[in-house]
Amino acid sequence: MRIAIVGLGLIGGSIGLGLRRSYVRGQLSDVIVGIPRRKKTIAEAITLGAIDEGTLDIKEGVAGADVVLLCTPISLIIPKLKELVPALKKGAIVSDVGSVKSEIVAAAAALMPAGTFFVGGHPMAGKEQVKLEAAEADLLTDKVYILTETPQTNKPALKIMTEVVTALRGKVVKMDPMTHDLVVAAVSHAPLAIAAALVNSVAETSLAYPQVKSCAASGFKDTTRIASGDPVLGVDMFTANKLGVLASIGAFRVALGKLEKAIQAEDKAAISKLLAQAKNFRDDLYQ
Amino acid sequence: MRIAIVGLGLIGGSIGLGLRRSYVRGQLSDVIVGIPRRKKTIAEAITLGAIDEGTLDIKEGVAGADVVLLCTPISLIIPKLKELVPALKKGAIVSDVGSVKSEIVAAAAALMPAGTFFVGGHPMAGKEQVKLEAAEADLLTDKVYILTETPQTNKPALKIMTEVVTALRGKVVKMDPMTHDLVVAAVSHAPLAIAAALVNSVAETSLAYPQVKSCAASGFKDTTRIASGDPVLGVDMFTANKLGVLASIGAFRVALGKLEKAIQAEDKAAISKLLAQAKNFRDDLYQ
Repeated sequence: MRIAIVGLGLIGGSIGLGLRRSYVRGQLSDVIVGIPRRKKTIAEAITLGAIDEGTLDIKEGVAGADVVLLCTPISLIIPKLKELVPALKKGAIVSDVGSVKSEIVAAAAALMPAGTFFVGGHPMAGKEQVKLEAAEADLLTDKVYILTETPQTNKPALKIMTEVVTALRGKVVKMDPMTHDLVVAAVSHAPLAIAAALVNSVAETSLAYPQVKSCAASGFKDTTRIASGDPVLGVDMFTANKLGVLASIGAFRVALGKLEKAIQAEDKAAISKLLAQAKNFRDDLYQ
Repeated sequence: MRIAIVGLGLIGGSIGLGLRRSYVRGQLSDVIVGIPRRKKTIAEAITLGAIDEGTLDIKEGVAGADVVLLCTPISLIIPKLKELVPALKKGAIVSDVGSVKSEIVAAAAALMPAGTFFVGGHPMAGKEQVKLEAAEADLLTDKVYILTETPQTNKPALKIMTEVVTALRGKVVKMDPMTHDLVVAAVSHAPLAIAAALVNSVAETSLAYPQVKSCAASGFKDTTRIASGDPVLGVDMFTANKLGVLASIGAFRVALGKLEKAIQAEDKAAISKLLAQAKNFRDDLYQ
């Protein structure tokens, strides 16, 4: 199998490393072609072991590929897909790793030539560093990797993408694009907005109380970790998944309001109940 | 120096372990007396090396002590102080580890007999586990340990408490009680309310979308870590520091509102600016 990876950042690089490890182990006998933005990335990715070969010419890179993985920022996924579709071979499967799916899956469905197939993907993994040098073969190991399934999804293509994700040691979860966007808004996009707003409110407080800086201990550090991610990714998430994000923030405001009301009333039983509810749900998730 | 620790949970136990380590190294030649709630804790704390001796009788425990550290939950600090003051020797210093200071410092000032001194304290460290078995000699190492300073604070007593904290390898930061409460509301208490509300909103979402549970990845896990703490501590913080907490949540709501407005308007420049502002402030804190 020939796999083309468009975009060699943290995710594209980690997928290359993970697939080539499986390839060495004989799970998939692949050639991994990398199509980065900059020429020097090709040599770096080959040295790292993330790709076998590379090119800057996207059409040349995807020609003959069985699977094409679009690992660019969200806003470039559809533009890159438009560029590459004329070069796809019959039977080729294209997937992406964007953290928003409704818009992308709908737009891709309209672009794919007959006899080629699009399956939306979203590996639920990441870190603050988004460059190739941060890539790890194990970045996706044991992590949820969502693949989209709609009534139009080609089953054999979905099966092959499931095999690719399994070779990466990810855990496939199938979901329709709209459910994906609501779920990810709740557990990923809205938390980013909340963490960033929390940092900004503390930055504001620090103008009057500079002591805030020396007192921001481990709790604050963890609560706001995701606010140190690349703003470009956040802009993409918040605009591409606008409705999901706003709905999740709305639900969060309601939950926060309940706690504020209980604090205002000094209602210890109500505060305790809300905190215990949160603790129990969370402990259950991560036990 | 004879040091009495009232309450042998995570913090009291860690202080005992930290002080006895310094004692072995000759920085302080102390006897550490533990005064826990349950008899079996005495033997456990001696075995762990957190105390030299123990008693359940608080008056007996603090008699002859140079320094008494109140390491109980917030709501028990003043009741325990009331119990023990009659037994304090002349010159004794009492401190506490409560995460709220205005109320405690004011109430303590009114209770302390002439010739004895109260210095409010707050070590900015903790973890989800709050029992003695989670105690560590290094829990407070390199962590901020706030000591309160008011016009009424006895300077020699503040100096001795500074030495105690230094022996614990903590970093002393002096603050008046009101500033403390506003600062801690911003970086610790409000983040707890926000994390708990975020978990509760996701728990609500999971009723309609059970997939939320499998997709709550590392970002959500970190963002909500503090929501797994003991609800009893949260109830104490939110009631004892009610005004500070509500003010900080209010400031947070304003900051979140700015981001929501930018998302609603799909104003990429504004979103990017707000996310970059958060990233820069946070990266600066933890670089």
